[in-house]
Amino acid sequence: MAKFKVSSRIVRSGRSRWFSEAAIPFRHPGTIRLSLRIERLVHRERSAFQDILIFDHAVFGRVLVLDGIVQLTQADEFIYHEMLVHPVLLSHPDPRDILIIGSGDGGALREVLRHPVREVCLVDIDRRVIELSQEHLGFASAGAFRSRRARVMVQDGQQFIRNYAGRFDIVIVDSTDPVGASTPLYTEGFYRDVFRALKDEGMLVAQVGTFLDFEDIIRTTHRSLARLFPSVQTYRFSIPSYLCGDYCFIAASKAIDLAAPEFEAIERRFAVLARKKRFRYYSPAIHRAACTLPRVWRL
Amino acid sequence: MAKFKVSSRIVRSGRSRWFSEAAIPFRHPGTIRLSLRIERLVHRERSAFQDILIFDHAVFGRVLVLDGIVQLTQADEFIYHEMLVHPVLLSHPDPRDILIIGSGDGGALREVLRHPVREVCLVDIDRRVIELSQEHLGFASAGAFRSRRARVMVQDGQQFIRNYAGRFDIVIVDSTDPVGASTPLYTEGFYRDVFRALKDEGMLVAQVGTFLDFEDIIRTTHRSLARLFPSVQTYRFSIPSYLCGDYCFIAASKAIDLAAPEFEAIERRFAVLARKKRFRYYSPAIHRAACTLPRVWRL
Repeated sequence: MAKFKVSSRIVRSGRSRWFSEAAIPFRHPGTIRLSLRIERLVHRERSAFQDILIFDHAVFGRVLVLDGIVQLTQADEFIYHEMLVHPVLLSHPDPRDILIIGSGDGGALREVLRHPVREVCLVDIDRRVIELSQEHLGFASAGAFRSRRARVMVQDGQQFIRNYAGRFDIVIVDSTDPVGASTPLYTEGFYRDVFRALKDEGMLVAQVGTFLDFEDIIRTTHRSLARLFPSVQTYRFSIPSYLCGDYCFIAASKAIDLAAPEFEAIERRFAVLARKKRFRYYSPAIHRAACTLPRVWRL
Repeated sequence: MAKFKVSSRIVRSGRSRWFSEAAIPFRHPGTIRLSLRIERLVHRERSAFQDILIFDHAVFGRVLVLDGIVQLTQADEFIYHEMLVHPVLLSHPDPRDILIIGSGDGGALREVLRHPVREVCLVDIDRRVIELSQEHLGFASAGAFRSRRARVMVQDGQQFIRNYAGRFDIVIVDSTDPVGASTPLYTEGFYRDVFRALKDEGMLVAQVGTFLDFEDIIRTTHRSLARLFPSVQTYRFSIPSYLCGDYCFIAASKAIDLAAPEFEAIERRFAVLARKKRFRYYSPAIHRAACTLPRVWRL
Protein backbone atom coordinates (compact mmCIF):
# COMPACT_ATOMS: atom_id res chain seq x y z
CA MET A 1 0.00 0.00 0.00
CA ALA A 2 3.08 2.17 -0.15
CA LYS A 3 1.70 3.86 -3.22
CA PHE A 4 -0.51 5.96 -0.97
CA LYS A 5 2.44 7.18 1.05
CA VAL A 6 3.25 10.74 0.20
CA SER A 7 5.39 13.50 1.50
CA SER A 8 3.72 16.72 2.54
CA ARG A 9 3.20 18.91 -0.45
CA ILE A 10 3.89 22.57 0.12
CA VAL A 11 2.65 24.69 -2.73
CA ARG A 12 3.21 28.38 -3.40
CA SER A 13 0.23 30.44 -4.53
CA GLY A 14 0.92 34.13 -4.96
CA ARG A 15 2.59 35.31 -1.78
CA SER A 16 1.32 32.47 0.39
CA ARG A 17 2.39 28.89 1.01
CA TRP A 18 -0.14 26.10 1.28
CA PHE A 19 -0.01 22.63 2.74
CA SER A 20 -1.94 20.26 0.50
CA GLU A 21 -3.24 16.87 1.63
CA ALA A 22 -3.58 14.81 -1.51
CA ALA A 23 -3.26 11.20 -0.41
CA ILE A 24 -6.98 10.70 -0.03
CA PRO A 25 -9.36 9.15 -0.65
CA PHE A 26 -8.23 5.58 -0.47
CA ARG A 27 -10.18 4.25 -3.43
CA HIS A 28 -9.59 7.20 -5.73
CA PRO A 29 -6.32 8.65 -4.50
CA GLY A 30 -5.58 12.18 -5.52
CA THR A 31 -9.12 13.28 -6.39
CA ILE A 32 -9.85 15.25 -3.20
CA ARG A 33 -7.46 17.76 -1.68
CA LEU A 34 -7.56 19.65 1.56
CA SER A 35 -5.33 22.69 1.48
CA LEU A 36 -4.43 24.78 4.49
CA ARG A 37 -2.69 28.12 4.15
CA ILE A 38 0.53 28.12 6.14
CA GLU A 39 0.84 31.12 8.44
CA ARG A 40 4.21 29.98 9.73
CA LEU A 41 6.25 26.92 8.90
CA VAL A 42 7.41 25.66 12.30
CA HIS A 43 9.37 22.52 11.45
CA ARG A 44 9.93 20.07 8.68
CA GLU A 45 12.05 16.93 8.55
CA ARG A 46 12.16 13.40 7.29
CA SER A 47 12.64 11.06 10.27
CA ALA A 48 13.70 7.42 9.93
CA PHE A 49 10.02 6.53 9.60
CA GLN A 50 8.06 9.38 8.11
CA ASP A 51 7.82 12.87 6.77
CA ILE A 52 7.07 15.27 9.64
CA LEU A 53 5.63 18.74 9.10
CA ILE A 54 4.51 21.23 11.74
CA PHE A 55 2.98 24.59 10.84
CA ASP A 56 0.57 27.24 12.10
CA HIS A 57 -2.85 27.86 10.55
CA ALA A 58 -5.22 30.80 11.10
CA VAL A 59 -8.18 28.64 12.14
CA PHE A 60 -6.68 25.36 13.27
CA GLY A 61 -3.70 26.76 15.18
CA ARG A 62 -0.66 24.51 15.22
CA VAL A 63 -0.93 21.52 12.89
CA LEU A 64 1.02 18.23 12.89
CA VAL A 65 1.25 16.39 9.58
CA LEU A 66 2.78 12.91 9.15
CA ASP A 67 3.42 11.50 5.68
CA GLY A 68 1.25 14.20 4.14
CA ILE A 69 -1.81 13.54 6.35
CA VAL A 70 -3.06 15.91 9.05
CA GLN A 71 -2.71 14.12 12.42
CA LEU A 72 -3.86 16.75 14.83
CA THR A 73 -4.55 20.43 15.08
CA GLN A 74 -4.55 22.60 18.15
CA ALA A 75 -8.16 23.68 17.53
CA ASP A 76 -9.77 20.26 17.47
CA GLU A 77 -7.41 17.62 18.91
CA PHE A 78 -9.56 17.59 22.07
CA ILE A 79 -12.36 15.95 20.07
CA TYR A 80 -10.10 13.20 18.77
CA HIS A 81 -8.36 12.47 22.06
CA GLU A 82 -11.41 12.66 24.33
CA MET A 83 -13.30 10.32 22.00
CA LEU A 84 -10.36 7.93 21.69
CA VAL A 85 -9.79 7.55 25.41
CA HIS A 86 -12.94 8.06 27.48
CA PRO A 87 -15.44 5.66 25.89
CA VAL A 88 -13.22 2.64 26.69
CA LEU A 89 -11.75 3.91 29.95
CA LEU A 90 -15.24 4.59 31.30
CA SER A 91 -16.81 1.41 29.91
CA HIS A 92 -14.14 -0.68 31.65
CA PRO A 93 -15.03 -1.06 35.35
CA ASP A 94 -11.51 -0.55 36.71
CA PRO A 95 -8.82 0.32 34.15
CA ARG A 96 -5.41 0.26 35.82
CA ASP A 97 -2.75 -0.73 33.29
CA ILE A 98 -2.96 1.04 29.98
CA LEU A 99 -0.93 0.69 26.79
CA ILE A 100 -0.96 3.33 24.08
CA ILE A 101 0.58 2.41 20.72
CA GLY A 102 1.47 5.42 18.60
CA SER A 103 0.18 8.82 19.75
CA GLY A 104 3.67 10.23 20.24
CA ASP A 105 2.17 13.70 20.49
CA GLY A 106 0.96 12.85 24.00
CA GLY A 107 -2.70 13.85 23.57
CA ALA A 108 -4.05 10.38 24.36
CA LEU A 109 -1.62 10.09 27.29
CA ARG A 110 -2.95 13.38 28.71
CA GLU A 111 -6.56 12.14 28.58
CA VAL A 112 -5.72 8.68 30.03
CA LEU A 113 -3.96 10.31 32.99
CA ARG A 114 -7.21 12.03 34.01
CA HIS A 115 -8.34 8.57 35.11
CA PRO A 116 -7.04 6.93 38.32
CA VAL A 117 -4.89 4.45 36.37
CA ARG A 118 -1.77 2.81 37.82
CA GLU A 119 0.50 3.07 34.80
CA VAL A 120 0.34 4.12 31.16
CA CYS A 121 2.92 2.79 28.71
CA LEU A 122 3.23 4.83 25.53
CA VAL A 123 5.07 3.04 22.73
CA ASP A 124 5.79 5.03 19.59
CA ILE A 125 8.08 3.85 16.83
CA ASP A 126 9.32 7.33 16.01
CA ARG A 127 11.42 9.12 18.63
CA ARG A 128 11.29 12.33 16.60
CA VAL A 129 7.49 12.60 16.86
CA ILE A 130 7.76 12.42 20.65
CA GLU A 131 10.60 14.94 20.78
CA LEU A 132 9.13 17.40 18.30
CA SER A 133 5.70 17.20 19.94
CA GLN A 134 7.18 18.17 23.29
CA GLU A 135 9.07 20.98 21.64
CA HIS A 136 6.33 22.36 19.39
CA LEU A 137 2.98 20.86 20.44
CA GLY A 138 3.09 21.28 24.20
CA PHE A 139 -0.72 21.77 24.28
CA ALA A 140 -1.18 18.11 23.28
CA SER A 141 0.66 16.40 26.12
CA ALA A 142 0.12 19.32 28.56
CA GLY A 143 2.86 17.96 30.80
CA ALA A 144 1.69 14.33 30.63
CA PHE A 145 5.15 13.05 29.66
CA ARG A 146 6.44 14.15 33.07
CA SER A 147 3.84 12.14 35.01
CA ARG A 148 5.22 9.45 37.33
CA ARG A 149 2.51 7.16 35.98
CA ALA A 150 3.73 7.50 32.37
CA ARG A 151 6.34 5.20 30.81
CA VAL A 152 7.40 6.26 27.35
CA MET A 153 9.22 3.82 25.07
CA VAL A 154 10.53 4.24 21.56
CA GLN A 155 9.78 0.88 19.99
CA ASP A 156 7.76 -0.83 17.34
CA GLY A 157 4.38 -1.36 18.99
CA GLN A 158 3.77 -4.47 16.94
CA GLN A 159 6.95 -6.08 18.35
CA PHE A 160 6.42 -4.69 21.84
CA ILE A 161 3.01 -6.22 22.37
CA ARG A 162 4.25 -9.75 21.57
CA ASN A 163 6.18 -9.75 24.87
CA TYR A 164 3.04 -9.58 26.97
CA ALA A 165 0.18 -11.83 27.99
CA GLY A 166 -2.68 -10.77 30.28
CA ARG A 167 -0.83 -7.57 31.16
CA PHE A 168 -3.08 -4.64 30.15
CA ASP A 169 -6.63 -3.54 30.93
CA ILE A 170 -6.82 -1.30 27.88
CA VAL A 171 -4.79 -1.10 24.68
CA ILE A 172 -5.23 2.10 22.65
CA VAL A 173 -4.01 1.88 19.06
CA ASP A 174 -3.59 5.44 17.84
CA SER A 175 -1.76 4.80 14.62
CA THR A 176 -1.63 6.83 11.45
CA ASP A 177 -3.89 5.80 8.56
CA PRO A 178 -3.62 2.22 7.25
CA VAL A 179 -0.90 3.15 4.80
CA GLY A 180 2.89 3.16 5.08
CA ALA A 181 4.43 2.53 8.52
CA SER A 182 1.08 1.74 10.16
CA THR A 183 -0.05 -1.03 7.81
CA PRO A 184 0.93 -3.88 10.23
CA LEU A 185 -1.32 -2.35 12.90
CA TYR A 186 -4.36 -3.17 10.79
CA THR A 187 -3.76 -6.93 10.47
CA GLU A 188 -5.56 -9.76 12.23
CA GLY A 189 -2.21 -11.07 13.51
CA PHE A 190 -1.64 -7.83 15.36
CA TYR A 191 -5.13 -7.90 16.86
CA ARG A 192 -4.47 -11.46 18.06
CA ASP A 193 -1.34 -10.23 19.83
CA VAL A 194 -3.35 -7.43 21.43
CA PHE A 195 -5.99 -9.94 22.55
CA ARG A 196 -3.31 -12.01 24.24
CA ALA A 197 -1.73 -8.98 25.92
CA LEU A 198 -5.05 -8.01 27.49
CA LYS A 199 -6.37 -9.16 30.86
CA ASP A 200 -9.64 -11.12 31.06
CA GLU A 201 -11.78 -7.97 31.12
CA GLY A 202 -9.48 -6.17 28.67
CA MET A 203 -10.49 -3.80 25.95
CA LEU A 204 -8.97 -2.47 22.75
CA VAL A 205 -9.72 0.72 20.89
CA ALA A 206 -8.28 1.55 17.48
CA GLN A 207 -8.69 4.48 15.14
CA VAL A 208 -9.73 3.49 11.65
CA GLY A 209 -10.86 6.34 9.41
CA THR A 210 -13.88 7.77 7.62
CA PHE A 211 -16.59 5.68 6.01
CA LEU A 212 -16.06 7.51 2.76
CA ASP A 213 -12.35 6.68 2.57
CA PHE A 214 -12.07 3.49 4.47
CA GLU A 215 -15.42 1.72 4.47
CA ASP A 216 -13.79 -1.55 3.38
CA ILE A 217 -11.11 -1.31 6.06
CA ILE A 218 -13.69 -0.44 8.72
CA ARG A 219 -15.76 -3.48 7.76
CA THR A 220 -12.69 -5.77 7.57
CA THR A 221 -11.36 -4.53 10.91
CA HIS A 222 -14.76 -4.89 12.56
CA ARG A 223 -15.02 -8.47 11.28
CA SER A 224 -11.44 -9.36 12.28
CA LEU A 225 -12.05 -8.08 15.80
CA ALA A 226 -15.43 -9.82 16.04
CA ARG A 227 -13.69 -13.15 15.37
CA LEU A 228 -11.49 -12.56 18.43
CA PHE A 229 -13.54 -10.52 20.87
CA PRO A 230 -17.08 -11.31 22.09
CA SER A 231 -18.09 -7.64 21.85
CA VAL A 232 -17.15 -5.10 19.17
CA GLN A 233 -18.54 -1.60 18.77
CA THR A 234 -17.73 0.86 15.99
CA TYR A 235 -18.43 4.47 16.91
CA ARG A 236 -18.17 7.71 15.02
CA PHE A 237 -18.03 11.47 15.35
CA SER A 238 -16.54 14.19 13.22
CA ILE A 239 -13.30 16.12 13.43
CA PRO A 240 -13.25 19.49 11.65
CA SER A 241 -9.70 19.18 10.29
CA TYR A 242 -10.27 15.68 8.90
CA LEU A 243 -11.93 15.51 5.52
CA CYS A 244 -14.89 13.45 4.41
CA GLY A 245 -17.32 13.26 7.30
CA ASP A 246 -17.76 10.87 10.19
CA TYR A 247 -14.58 9.38 11.53
CA CYS A 248 -14.57 5.89 13.08
CA PHE A 249 -12.98 4.27 16.06
CA ILE A 250 -13.54 0.60 16.83
CA ALA A 251 -13.64 -0.73 20.39
CA ALA A 252 -13.45 -4.43 21.21
CA SER A 253 -13.91 -6.09 24.57
CA LYS A 254 -13.33 -9.48 26.17
CA ALA A 255 -16.07 -9.17 28.79
CA ILE A 256 -18.00 -5.88 28.84
CA ASP A 257 -20.91 -5.62 26.42
CA LEU A 258 -19.98 -2.47 24.51
CA ALA A 259 -23.43 -2.13 22.98
CA ALA A 260 -24.89 -1.72 26.46
CA PRO A 261 -22.26 -0.66 28.96
CA GLU A 262 -23.52 0.34 32.40
CA PHE A 263 -24.27 3.97 31.68
CA GLU A 264 -25.22 4.67 35.29
CA ALA A 265 -21.74 3.72 36.42
CA ILE A 266 -20.25 5.69 33.52
CA GLU A 267 -22.29 8.77 34.52
CA ARG A 268 -21.09 8.50 38.14
CA ARG A 269 -17.41 8.16 37.27
CA PHE A 270 -17.68 10.83 34.58
CA ALA A 271 -19.16 13.28 37.09
CA VAL A 272 -16.21 12.69 39.45
CA LEU A 273 -13.63 13.27 36.69
CA ALA A 274 -15.50 16.33 35.34
CA ARG A 275 -15.31 18.00 38.75
CA LYS A 276 -11.52 18.08 38.50
CA LYS A 277 -11.38 19.25 34.88
CA ARG A 278 -14.22 19.82 32.45
CA PHE A 279 -14.65 17.70 29.38
CA ARG A 280 -15.08 19.76 26.24
CA TYR A 281 -16.49 17.08 23.92
CA TYR A 282 -16.98 13.72 25.63
CA SER A 283 -20.01 13.04 27.80
CA PRO A 284 -21.94 9.83 28.44
CA ALA A 285 -24.70 11.23 26.17
CA ILE A 286 -22.16 11.86 23.39
CA HIS A 287 -20.76 8.35 24.01
CA ARG A 288 -24.22 6.91 23.34
CA ALA A 289 -24.80 9.18 20.33
CA ALA A 290 -21.45 8.19 18.80
CA CYS A 291 -22.36 4.49 19.05
CA THR A 292 -25.52 5.10 17.01
CA LEU A 293 -24.68 4.33 13.40
CA PRO A 294 -26.81 5.29 10.42
CA ARG A 295 -28.33 2.34 8.59
CA VAL A 296 -26.14 2.76 5.54
CA TRP A 297 -23.01 2.12 7.61
CA ARG A 298 -24.37 -0.44 10.05
CA LEU A 299 -21.86 -3.22 10.69
CA MET B 1 -21.16 40.13 3.51
CA ALA B 2 -20.77 40.18 -0.25
CA LYS B 3 -17.02 39.97 0.12
CA PHE B 4 -17.35 36.24 0.78
CA LYS B 5 -19.21 35.70 -2.46
CA VAL B 6 -17.01 34.01 -4.97
CA SER B 7 -17.32 32.39 -8.32
CA SER B 8 -16.31 28.79 -8.65
CA ARG B 9 -12.62 28.57 -9.22
CA ILE B 10 -11.52 26.01 -11.76
CA VAL B 11 -7.80 25.44 -11.68
CA ARG B 12 -5.63 23.47 -14.06
CA SER B 13 -2.98 21.19 -12.57
CA GLY B 14 -1.05 19.14 -15.09
CA ARG B 15 -3.57 17.42 -17.30
CA SER B 16 -6.46 17.68 -14.84
CA ARG B 17 -8.93 20.38 -13.88
CA TRP B 18 -9.87 21.01 -10.27
CA PHE B 19 -12.77 22.76 -8.62
CA SER B 20 -11.54 24.69 -5.62
CA GLU B 21 -13.78 25.89 -2.77
CA ALA B 22 -12.02 28.83 -1.22
CA ALA B 23 -14.75 30.93 0.38
CA ILE B 24 -14.39 29.31 3.77
CA PRO B 25 -14.03 29.60 6.64
CA PHE B 26 -16.13 32.57 7.54
CA ARG B 27 -13.80 34.16 10.05
CA HIS B 28 -10.59 33.58 8.12
CA PRO B 29 -11.75 33.44 4.51
CA GLY B 30 -9.38 31.85 2.08
CA THR B 31 -7.27 29.86 4.55
CA ILE B 32 -8.86 26.45 3.94
CA ARG B 33 -9.54 25.02 0.51
CA LEU B 34 -11.35 21.91 -0.58
CA SER B 35 -10.39 20.87 -4.08
CA LEU B 36 -12.17 18.22 -6.10
CA ARG B 37 -10.74 16.88 -9.33
CA ILE B 38 -13.19 17.34 -12.17
CA GLU B 39 -13.79 14.14 -14.14
CA ARG B 40 -16.20 15.88 -16.47
CA LEU B 41 -17.46 19.45 -16.53
CA VAL B 42 -21.23 19.08 -17.03
CA HIS B 43 -22.47 22.68 -16.98
CA ARG B 44 -21.44 26.15 -16.02
CA GLU B 45 -23.31 29.42 -16.13
CA ARG B 46 -23.94 32.62 -14.28
CA SER B 47 -27.69 32.92 -13.61
CA ALA B 48 -29.38 36.15 -12.58
CA PHE B 49 -28.63 35.22 -8.97
CA GLN B 50 -25.55 33.09 -8.73
CA ASP B 51 -22.70 31.21 -10.31
CA ILE B 52 -23.82 27.64 -11.10
CA LEU B 53 -21.36 24.81 -11.69
CA ILE B 54 -22.15 21.13 -12.21
CA PHE B 55 -19.43 18.51 -12.63
CA ASP B 56 -18.66 14.84 -12.06
CA HIS B 57 -16.22 13.60 -9.41
CA ALA B 58 -14.73 10.11 -8.99
CA VAL B 59 -15.92 9.69 -5.40
CA PHE B 60 -18.80 12.12 -4.98
CA GLY B 61 -20.46 11.53 -8.35
CA ARG B 62 -22.29 14.53 -9.75
CA VAL B 63 -21.68 17.75 -7.81
CA LEU B 64 -23.70 20.99 -7.70
CA VAL B 65 -21.82 24.14 -6.74
CA LEU B 66 -23.47 27.54 -6.19
CA ASP B 67 -21.36 30.67 -5.80
CA GLY B 68 -18.27 28.56 -5.31
CA ILE B 69 -19.70 26.41 -2.47
CA VAL B 70 -20.56 22.70 -2.82
CA GLN B 71 -24.34 22.37 -2.36
CA LEU B 72 -24.87 18.69 -2.91
CA THR B 73 -23.17 15.63 -4.29
CA GLN B 74 -24.74 12.48 -5.61
CA ALA B 75 -22.84 10.35 -3.08
CA ASP B 76 -24.02 12.02 0.10
CA GLU B 77 -27.06 14.23 -0.59
CA PHE B 78 -29.22 11.56 1.08
CA ILE B 79 -27.63 12.44 4.42
CA TYR B 80 -28.39 16.13 4.04
CA HIS B 81 -31.94 15.73 2.77
CA GLU B 82 -33.02 12.95 5.13
CA MET B 83 -31.71 14.93 8.10
CA LEU B 84 -33.29 18.17 6.89
CA VAL B 85 -36.75 16.74 6.40
CA HIS B 86 -37.52 13.80 8.68
CA PRO B 87 -36.70 15.14 12.16
CA VAL B 88 -39.34 17.90 11.84
CA LEU B 89 -41.86 15.98 9.74
CA LEU B 90 -41.84 13.12 12.25
CA SER B 91 -41.78 15.34 15.36
CA HIS B 92 -44.89 17.17 14.12
CA PRO B 93 -47.99 15.04 14.86
CA ASP B 94 -49.74 15.64 11.54
CA PRO B 95 -47.82 17.65 8.93
CA ARG B 96 -50.10 18.43 5.98
CA ASP B 97 -49.05 21.73 4.40
CA ILE B 98 -45.35 22.15 3.83
CA LEU B 99 -43.32 25.04 2.47
CA ILE B 100 -39.77 24.61 1.23
CA ILE B 101 -37.73 27.76 0.61
CA GLY B 102 -34.72 27.20 -1.63
CA SER B 103 -33.79 23.59 -2.40
CA GLY B 104 -34.38 23.99 -6.14
CA ASP B 105 -32.58 20.70 -6.71
CA GLY B 106 -35.65 18.85 -5.43
CA GLY B 107 -33.93 16.66 -2.83
CA ALA B 108 -35.93 18.03 0.10
CA LEU B 109 -39.12 17.84 -1.97
CA ARG B 110 -38.43 14.15 -2.64
CA GLU B 111 -38.06 13.38 1.06
CA VAL B 112 -41.12 15.43 2.11
CA LEU B 113 -43.27 13.55 -0.41
CA ARG B 114 -42.53 10.26 1.38
CA HIS B 115 -44.84 11.56 4.10
CA PRO B 116 -48.64 11.64 3.71
CA VAL B 117 -48.69 15.43 3.30
CA ARG B 118 -51.45 17.30 1.45
CA GLU B 119 -49.32 19.80 -0.45
CA VAL B 120 -45.71 20.91 -0.67
CA CYS B 121 -44.87 24.38 -2.01
CA LEU B 122 -41.30 24.78 -3.19
CA VAL B 123 -40.21 28.38 -3.64
CA ASP B 124 -36.80 29.00 -5.14
CA ILE B 125 -35.57 32.38 -6.30
CA ASP B 126 -33.52 30.92 -9.16
CA ARG B 127 -35.40 29.28 -12.03
CA ARG B 128 -32.13 28.05 -13.49
CA VAL B 129 -31.30 25.92 -10.44
CA ILE B 130 -34.66 24.16 -10.78
CA GLU B 131 -34.26 23.66 -14.53
CA LEU B 132 -30.64 22.55 -14.45
CA SER B 133 -31.29 20.18 -11.53
CA GLN B 134 -34.04 18.43 -13.49
CA GLU B 135 -31.76 18.23 -16.49
CA HIS B 136 -28.53 17.15 -14.76
CA LEU B 137 -29.32 16.07 -11.18
CA GLY B 138 -32.32 13.84 -11.70
CA PHE B 139 -31.25 11.63 -8.75
CA ALA B 140 -32.03 14.51 -6.35
CA SER B 141 -35.68 15.09 -7.17
CA ALA B 142 -36.25 11.50 -8.38
CA GLY B 143 -39.45 12.55 -10.13
CA ALA B 144 -40.74 14.64 -7.21
CA PHE B 145 -41.37 17.72 -9.39
CA ARG B 146 -44.05 15.75 -11.26
CA SER B 147 -46.01 14.90 -8.09
CA ARG B 148 -49.59 16.21 -7.98
CA ARG B 149 -48.87 17.26 -4.38
CA ALA B 150 -45.95 19.50 -5.40
CA ARG B 151 -46.34 23.19 -6.31
CA VAL B 152 -43.16 24.80 -7.58
CA MET B 153 -42.83 28.57 -7.70
CA VAL B 154 -39.98 30.75 -8.85
CA GLN B 155 -40.06 33.59 -6.35
CA ASP B 156 -38.14 35.25 -3.59
CA GLY B 157 -38.98 33.14 -0.53
CA GLN B 158 -38.58 36.12 1.75
CA GLN B 159 -41.29 38.04 -0.16
CA PHE B 160 -43.46 34.94 -0.64
CA ILE B 161 -43.82 34.13 3.03
CA ARG B 162 -45.13 37.61 3.89
CA ASN B 163 -48.39 36.79 2.08
CA TYR B 164 -49.33 34.05 4.53
CA ALA B 165 -50.55 33.74 8.09
CA GLY B 166 -51.30 30.44 9.81
CA ARG B 167 -50.96 28.57 6.52
CA PHE B 168 -48.17 25.99 6.93
CA ASP B 169 -47.45 23.12 9.30
CA ILE B 170 -43.76 23.07 8.45
CA VAL B 171 -41.44 25.58 6.80
CA ILE B 172 -38.11 24.20 5.59
CA VAL B 173 -35.47 26.82 4.85
CA ASP B 174 -32.84 25.18 2.68
CA SER B 175 -30.85 28.20 1.65
CA THR B 176 -27.24 28.51 0.64
CA ASP B 177 -24.74 29.69 3.26
CA PRO B 178 -25.39 33.02 4.99
CA VAL B 179 -23.52 34.96 2.31
CA GLY B 180 -24.67 36.57 -0.93
CA ALA B 181 -28.26 35.94 -2.06
CA SER B 182 -29.21 34.05 1.11
CA THR B 183 -28.25 36.72 3.66
CA PRO B 184 -31.89 37.92 4.19
CA LEU B 185 -32.89 34.37 5.14
CA TYR B 186 -30.76 34.61 8.28
CA THR B 187 -32.43 37.72 9.79
CA GLU B 188 -34.83 37.92 12.72
CA GLY B 189 -37.34 39.75 10.51
CA PHE B 190 -37.51 36.76 8.20
CA TYR B 191 -37.97 34.35 11.11
CA ARG B 192 -40.83 36.53 12.38
CA ASP B 193 -42.51 36.20 8.97
CA VAL B 194 -42.05 32.43 9.11
CA PHE B 195 -43.55 32.35 12.61
CA ARG B 196 -46.64 34.22 11.34
CA ALA B 197 -46.98 31.93 8.30
CA LEU B 198 -47.04 28.84 10.52
CA LYS B 199 -50.12 27.23 12.06
CA ASP B 200 -50.43 26.96 15.85
CA GLU B 201 -48.47 23.70 16.00
CA GLY B 202 -46.11 24.81 13.25
CA MET B 203 -42.41 24.11 12.99
CA LEU B 204 -39.46 25.59 11.17
CA VAL B 205 -36.18 23.98 10.22
CA ALA B 206 -33.24 25.87 8.74
CA GLN B 207 -29.78 24.87 7.65
CA VAL B 208 -27.04 26.91 9.24
CA GLY B 209 -23.51 25.56 8.84
CA THR B 210 -20.61 24.07 10.72
CA PHE B 211 -19.57 25.09 14.20
CA LEU B 212 -16.08 25.78 12.97
CA ASP B 213 -17.20 28.22 10.29
CA PHE B 214 -20.40 29.59 11.63
CA GLU B 215 -20.43 29.25 15.40
CA ASP B 216 -21.45 32.90 15.82
CA ILE B 217 -24.25 32.59 13.26
CA ILE B 218 -25.46 29.34 14.85
CA ARG B 219 -25.59 31.00 18.26
CA THR B 220 -27.26 34.17 16.89
CA THR B 221 -29.82 32.16 14.92
CA HIS B 222 -30.57 29.93 17.90
CA ARG B 223 -31.11 33.01 20.10
CA SER B 224 -33.26 34.80 17.48
CA LEU B 225 -35.48 31.75 17.12
CA ALA B 226 -35.68 31.24 20.89
CA ARG B 227 -37.12 34.77 21.21
CA LEU B 228 -39.97 33.78 18.87
CA PHE B 229 -40.58 30.07 19.40
CA PRO B 230 -41.13 28.31 22.74
CA SER B 231 -38.94 25.37 21.68
CA VAL B 232 -35.69 25.45 19.69
CA GLN B 233 -33.34 22.53 19.01
CA THR B 234 -30.03 22.66 17.19
CA TYR B 235 -28.93 19.32 15.83
CA ARG B 236 -25.85 18.15 13.99
CA PHE B 237 -24.39 15.41 11.85
CA SER B 238 -21.66 15.32 9.27
CA ILE B 239 -21.71 15.39 5.49
CA PRO B 240 -18.61 13.98 3.77
CA SER B 241 -18.46 16.60 1.01
CA TYR B 242 -18.80 19.54 3.42
CA LEU B 243 -15.63 20.65 5.10
CA CYS B 244 -14.95 21.29 8.75
CA GLY B 245 -16.88 18.78 10.77
CA ASP B 246 -20.37 18.68 12.23
CA TYR B 247 -22.97 20.54 10.25
CA CYS B 248 -25.95 22.17 11.99
CA PHE B 249 -29.62 22.49 11.35
CA ILE B 250 -31.89 24.40 13.74
CA ALA B 251 -35.50 23.40 14.33
CA ALA B 252 -38.01 25.66 16.09
CA SER B 253 -41.50 24.83 17.16
CA LYS B 254 -44.61 26.63 18.39
CA ALA B 255 -46.02 23.73 20.38
CA ILE B 256 -44.04 20.48 20.28
CA ASP B 257 -41.17 20.19 22.74
CA LEU B 258 -38.28 19.44 20.40
CA ALA B 259 -36.01 18.36 23.22
CA ALA B 260 -38.42 15.55 24.04
CA PRO B 261 -40.66 14.72 21.09
CA GLU B 262 -42.78 11.60 21.44
CA PHE B 263 -40.28 9.06 20.21
CA GLU B 264 -42.77 6.20 20.45
CA ALA B 265 -45.03 7.93 17.93
CA ILE B 266 -41.98 8.78 15.80
CA GLU B 267 -40.89 5.13 15.84
CA ARG B 268 -44.35 3.98 14.77
CA ARG B 269 -44.67 6.43 11.88
CA PHE B 270 -41.06 5.83 10.84
CA ALA B 271 -41.69 2.08 10.65
CA VAL B 272 -44.66 2.64 8.34
CA LEU B 273 -42.66 4.93 6.00
CA ALA B 274 -39.63 2.61 6.04
CA ARG B 275 -41.76 -0.28 4.81
CA LYS B 276 -42.42 1.60 1.57
CA LYS B 277 -38.85 2.75 1.03
CA ARG B 278 -35.83 2.28 3.25
CA PHE B 279 -34.13 5.20 4.91
CA ARG B 280 -30.39 5.22 4.38
CA TYR B 281 -29.36 7.65 7.11
CA TYR B 282 -32.27 8.87 9.22
CA SER B 283 -33.70 6.76 12.01
CA PRO B 284 -35.30 7.76 15.31
CA ALA B 285 -32.05 6.68 17.03
CA ILE B 286 -30.01 8.92 14.70
CA HIS B 287 -32.54 11.71 15.36
CA ARG B 288 -31.82 11.45 19.08
CA ALA B 289 -28.06 11.17 18.53
CA ALA B 290 -28.03 14.27 16.31
CA CYS B 291 -29.79 16.31 19.01
CA THR B 292 -27.01 15.45 21.49
CA LEU B 293 -24.51 18.30 21.37
CA PRO B 294 -21.03 18.18 22.84
CA ARG B 295 -20.52 20.51 25.77
CA VAL B 296 -18.24 22.87 23.87
CA TRP B 297 -21.07 23.72 21.45
CA ARG B 298 -24.01 23.58 23.82
CA LEU B 299 -26.47 26.39 23.13
